[in-house]
Amino acid sequence: MKRRNFIKAAASSGIIATTSLAPASASVGEKAKKIKWKMVTSWPKNFPGLGTGANNLAKLITEMSGGRLKVKVYSANELVPAFETFDAVSRGTAQMAHGASYYWKGKSQAAQFFAAVPFGLTAQEMNGWLYTGGGMELWKETYKKFGIIPAAAGNTGVQMAGWFNKEIKSVDDLKGLKMRIPGLGGEVLKRAGGTPVSLPGHEIFTSLKTGVIDATEWVGPYNDLAFGLHKAAKFYYYPGWHEPGTTLEALINKKALESLPDDLQSIVLNACKIVNQQMTAEYTTRNHQALDTLVNKHKVKVLKLPDEVLKTLQKLSDEVVSKIAAEDKMSEKVFKSFTAYRDQVRQWTAISEMAYLNNR
Amino acid sequence: MKRRNFIKAAASSGIIATTSLAPASASVGEKAKKIKWKMVTSWPKNFPGLGTGANNLAKLITEMSGGRLKVKVYSANELVPAFETFDAVSRGTAQMAHGASYYWKGKSQAAQFFAAVPFGLTAQEMNGWLYTGGGMELWKETYKKFGIIPAAAGNTGVQMAGWFNKEIKSVDDLKGLKMRIPGLGGEVLKRAGGTPVSLPGHEIFTSLKTGVIDATEWVGPYNDLAFGLHKAAKFYYYPGWHEPGTTLEALINKKALESLPDDLQSIVLNACKIVNQQMTAEYTTRNHQALDTLVNKHKVKVLKLPDEVLKTLQKLSDEVVSKIAAEDKMSEKVFKSFTAYRDQVRQWTAISEMAYLNNR
Repeated sequence: MKRRNFIKAAASSGIIATTSLAPASASVGEKAKKIKWKMVTSWPKNFPGLGTGANNLAKLITEMSGGRLKVKVYSANELVPAFETFDAVSRGTAQMAHGASYYWKGKSQAAQFFAAVPFGLTAQEMNGWLYTGGGMELWKETYKKFGIIPAAAGNTGVQMAGWFNKEIKSVDDLKGLKMRIPGLGGEVLKRAGGTPVSLPGHEIFTSLKTGVIDATEWVGPYNDLAFGLHKAAKFYYYPGWHEPGTTLEALINKKALESLPDDLQSIVLNACKIVNQQMTAEYTTRNHQALDTLVNKHKVKVLKLPDEVLKTLQKLSDEVVSKIAAEDKMSEKVFKSFTAYRDQVRQWTAISEMAYLNNR
Repeated sequence: MKRRNFIKAAASSGIIATTSLAPASASVGEKAKKIKWKMVTSWPKNFPGLGTGANNLAKLITEMSGGRLKVKVYSANELVPAFETFDAVSRGTAQMAHGASYYWKGKSQAAQFFAAVPFGLTAQEMNGWLYTGGGMELWKETYKKFGIIPAAAGNTGVQMAGWFNKEIKSVDDLKGLKMRIPGLGGEVLKRAGGTPVSLPGHEIFTSLKTGVIDATEWVGPYNDLAFGLHKAAKFYYYPGWHEPGTTLEALINKKALESLPDDLQSIVLNACKIVNQQMTAEYTTRNHQALDTLVNKHKVKVLKLPDEVLKTLQKLSDEVVSKIAAEDKMSEKVFKSFTAYRDQVRQWTAISEMAYLNNR
């Protein structure tokens, strides 16, 4: 929907109330007054992990503020469509949104670095870059012109490479492969000769089952099991390569945030950090439980992509990611920071997490 | 110092003010009234990473509460000695403490599982167990009889195996090795024929330099570089095995917490979660910077413990950890939960973090 049509539709439908919009300026400095915020999301209602992460975020803000700031969550299409949340926060229709930054590459190519980069950073490394490596400052700079303040608000950890109906034995098997894989991962598959397809979540199962697509990525065991993907595909491959530590994001209308007293501003931004950690913990636990069910109950075969295929994907990923840097000044700046951090942190990770896991 | 002597000394010295002790009952429910809390710690003043983590925690609580709850941090020995903080919070001399749970094995053997276990959980897995795998509930149960509520409040990630003046080429080289290594790691070294030594931080450098000890573990590149350990030892070994994701803890006096209004209770507990994540981010970034300095500027040799040695250490670790379970009912319960989680989550980690890192 175009923005003008959207506003017209909203106005005529009356869905968007004209009260309690950002900034809640009447409440500035008046601690006793209750403030109401709307959080629009890109998720189906109560979607496990991602949607429930948004619910947790709203609950935390309401709870830590003692109800002085109440946040109500709207699932995709309740107030605005899944991919209209950025605009909604930018113009103040909603004070907050929960989604992922790679949805906004149309706004700024640089945005993609703050969600997931093929062969990029793990969840722990991503938090290192964002919180103590300069990433967060660049993210804020990227969204500044839209009047939006971003915050990391969830991380799924390593996502799986996906479900396949055809075994991938060599790079040749990627040629002509019709796979549901969005974003940068899709670009990489295209360069490898495959056909990336964009499909909303609810169409994936049937498309895979009926052979409209040969493969799909989704998230990991926890979400994949809930979706029943094991009933649609022959093989389950690992390891993931295209989303090694996907960061979810909260978008906050700058004026709305700045109209709050200092303590509530701190609560909003810090609640995002709590959800960021909590989501990784939840995925870690739920993924291992779901993997157990998939393998032992549903007899799912977990295979490995051949080294040669992974090497090719890595080479193509580097090409795709480098191309973003050439798009504009901001993208170049973010690319440089991200890759410099990755190239250095991998040396520490190699003798800490990686060495430990290989020896455990 | 014995507890009675401590109280006498404190009373005569007047160090411990009798005002604003826990519970801050005069302030219950009165939101306008400022509440003051003391946080005693086991760290030297502003100690990088761990001590600054405690400072961050106090700052966050003060900030999110809009100054309604002000927390003042005391370094080790300012109010109470480093290892008297548990008792101080238990009796309400201080409302909070920051330290690590393996210091309290004298109170409960089970406490050791909530800090670091040799060949145990990584930071990400530890958060999974604590927040969504039942660990936090068991931690609370362990401290219940002391009137203390615990919270995870920092994680260093994988710690290094340490600094050595003698190269370890086989298990035989561990025999007679005098190494500064506390806790469970020390127990394991003892079973391998070594001599674990307990030394406070400030004595390590000279002891290693003068040959009083042959080796020492400390934390990782960030803290090790600051301590100058590269000037005292010949070799730096990896990977770490004895503390794969050390969790720091906040201790909160139960009565003091419960005397706060609901929003402040939520702020205190959630501030701990923020610091928990922030510390890992900080260590991830600072460790990789410090490693670069150690290797490229100070020409430190990073070696690898032989597989045979690591296998022996793992076998001995399992024996030492299993022994804790036999100590009492609570320890057995925690041991069972911890090992069940570890045995399952490692399967997920193997096809996510570990597989990804090995292919990146």
